[in-house]
Amino acid sequence: MVDPFTSELPDDYEKTIAEFGIKRIDENLKKKLPDHYLFRRNIVFAHRDLDKALTAKEFSVLTGIKPSNKLHLGSKLVADQMKIYQDMGAKIYYAVADLEAYHVNKKELDELHEIAVDNVADLLALGIKKDNYFYKQSTEKEVMQLGYLYARNVTYNMMKAIYGEKTVGETMVSLLQVGDILYPQQEKFGGSKLVIVPIGLDQDPHMRLTRDIAFKRKLVLPGSTYNKFMRSLDGSEKMSKRNEMGMISLSDDSKIATKKIMRTLTGGRETIEEQKEKGGNPSECVVFELFTYHFEPSDEKLLERKKACEGGKLMCGECKKQLAERTCKFLEQHQAKKSKLMKTAEKLLLK
Amino acid sequence: MVDPFTSELPDDYEKTIAEFGIKRIDENLKKKLPDHYLFRRNIVFAHRDLDKALTAKEFSVLTGIKPSNKLHLGSKLVADQMKIYQDMGAKIYYAVADLEAYHVNKKELDELHEIAVDNVADLLALGIKKDNYFYKQSTEKEVMQLGYLYARNVTYNMMKAIYGEKTVGETMVSLLQVGDILYPQQEKFGGSKLVIVPIGLDQDPHMRLTRDIAFKRKLVLPGSTYNKFMRSLDGSEKMSKRNEMGMISLSDDSKIATKKIMRTLTGGRETIEEQKEKGGNPSECVVFELFTYHFEPSDEKLLERKKACEGGKLMCGECKKQLAERTCKFLEQHQAKKSKLMKTAEKLLLK
Repeated sequence: MVDPFTSELPDDYEKTIAEFGIKRIDENLKKKLPDHYLFRRNIVFAHRDLDKALTAKEFSVLTGIKPSNKLHLGSKLVADQMKIYQDMGAKIYYAVADLEAYHVNKKELDELHEIAVDNVADLLALGIKKDNYFYKQSTEKEVMQLGYLYARNVTYNMMKAIYGEKTVGETMVSLLQVGDILYPQQEKFGGSKLVIVPIGLDQDPHMRLTRDIAFKRKLVLPGSTYNKFMRSLDGSEKMSKRNEMGMISLSDDSKIATKKIMRTLTGGRETIEEQKEKGGNPSECVVFELFTYHFEPSDEKLLERKKACEGGKLMCGECKKQLAERTCKFLEQHQAKKSKLMKTAEKLLLK
Repeated sequence: MVDPFTSELPDDYEKTIAEFGIKRIDENLKKKLPDHYLFRRNIVFAHRDLDKALTAKEFSVLTGIKPSNKLHLGSKLVADQMKIYQDMGAKIYYAVADLEAYHVNKKELDELHEIAVDNVADLLALGIKKDNYFYKQSTEKEVMQLGYLYARNVTYNMMKAIYGEKTVGETMVSLLQVGDILYPQQEKFGGSKLVIVPIGLDQDPHMRLTRDIAFKRKLVLPGSTYNKFMRSLDGSEKMSKRNEMGMISLSDDSKIATKKIMRTLTGGRETIEEQKEKGGNPSECVVFELFTYHFEPSDEKLLERKKACEGGKLMCGECKKQLAERTCKFLEQHQAKKSKLMKTAEKLLLK
């Protein structure tokens, strides 16, 4: 993780940004954006055309999530961004990428539907309003049609250059995703408009394909914002639905969540004595990352925590206990809200 | 053309039949089928699983036609088969393959819609009942979904082995066609059932792919019937929408149709004298083919015509004149019926 109070980025981030004309969210742009810790801490750190959203008559946001499992804190990070844009007046389009999950995760549509309902209930509980537009790829006629139509704009060589060797199904659902992103610009929704897609840098090739097709189709090129990845709890990889013990699920109960947090990688020393003497290392610590990304909205208090750690005054056990308390409180409140929203979620996806 | 009164087939037909387990429609099967000249004359000459249709509780028929141009006498041949099966009690599913035409013929959906309405009005005028099921690929949600799902059952190598090098779009619409053929077996239409697809032998690879996917999906393997191709009027190739002067369109007026017939390839001799002496050759004659396939329902009269030609008693000019009369009469009646059915056709495709 990068220090939340500097705007330095890992080398591979800088390289991608430079290569593809993505822009940093700089101090000038931050002043015009809502004052939110995701921007202040450079968690959402780069963009294409987000500046245009500030002056556009309207803009929309599109997010697509494969309903392959329960949502986790990494998904909450995306939902929090959606919420920011919703508060700025954007309409949210939420694509349940079930046909993508069908090919990538090899699950059946019925099972994917159940997971999708659960995911949408999470989003509603996280503050995404139900009067946005929610749909499943597999039942959205217009989007499926767009996938077939956009095939005219690509060649196998293009697809291979972007995605490497893929199956027939994966190639088809890549075009379906382009359909998702350009869907808000169809006549049904009032025609051409700027659409912002919150993603990670690893998904940028897909944005470049979509912008290429948008150009050929005389549509507004979609924009994007880029968030840093959250790491898995053991710090070994990106937080992912596939690694159950490496993530905190939004459906975890307090006992499980506490257990996971107690096992989380920290920046602590080998012994208490050494830590008191030399201090901990928050920039390596996943516990500090969880405070930074989710559980400490106050920059002042986050800085205090950082200094206490570095000064050898805050030990990992105590810090984890504080995180567990906040996490469990969040999860309990979230799950109570969510349970009341399951029927609404079910309705939103039944059409 | 093959002599309508023998059941001999060209060598390449025999080879395909032997290789892929297609069966001839033999005398035994003919006895159980409706007594129709298309069977008697071996114009519809082979099948897979048509015998099962005779004993099945129900069977359906699926035809898909690219709306790339006006229908012609080759299309009428398919419609005549649909009519036979309709009279046997089958429900007809008619797929307007507009997404296929979008990729193969590079036309836009709006234009394809207009042509499709015209095509469907032709079919209604040819006796296909409107209470069958008509749809366009581009607006049929379930079929588009099937195309995406069935991608799980194929590999690029399979597709290449069947179709050769194709574009991304062509690959996608091949799977969509599989969706068309298996669509009547979906729950929406009461589940698994035998579906017969009337095609030419050149389309058989597609049936083999579809049967393979049907097997993997635990559906009833679709059957098929095979008709001989009509030749273009100059005898040089298969009658096709692409060769305007080589076909008689169902929309041709009498003047054009007569002109085309007068230029049609015959089996006549170089001079009238030679023809009177040696007789003509009906088995090379496209005029005789048109009588055989469309305009002489009586076997007895067709045989009389053949003998008169071979005996040097019927000259090509006179024979063409007789064909032109029947053709023009058919076209006038057909177009009168069709003009009253345009609105119905429009309605059938608007959903």
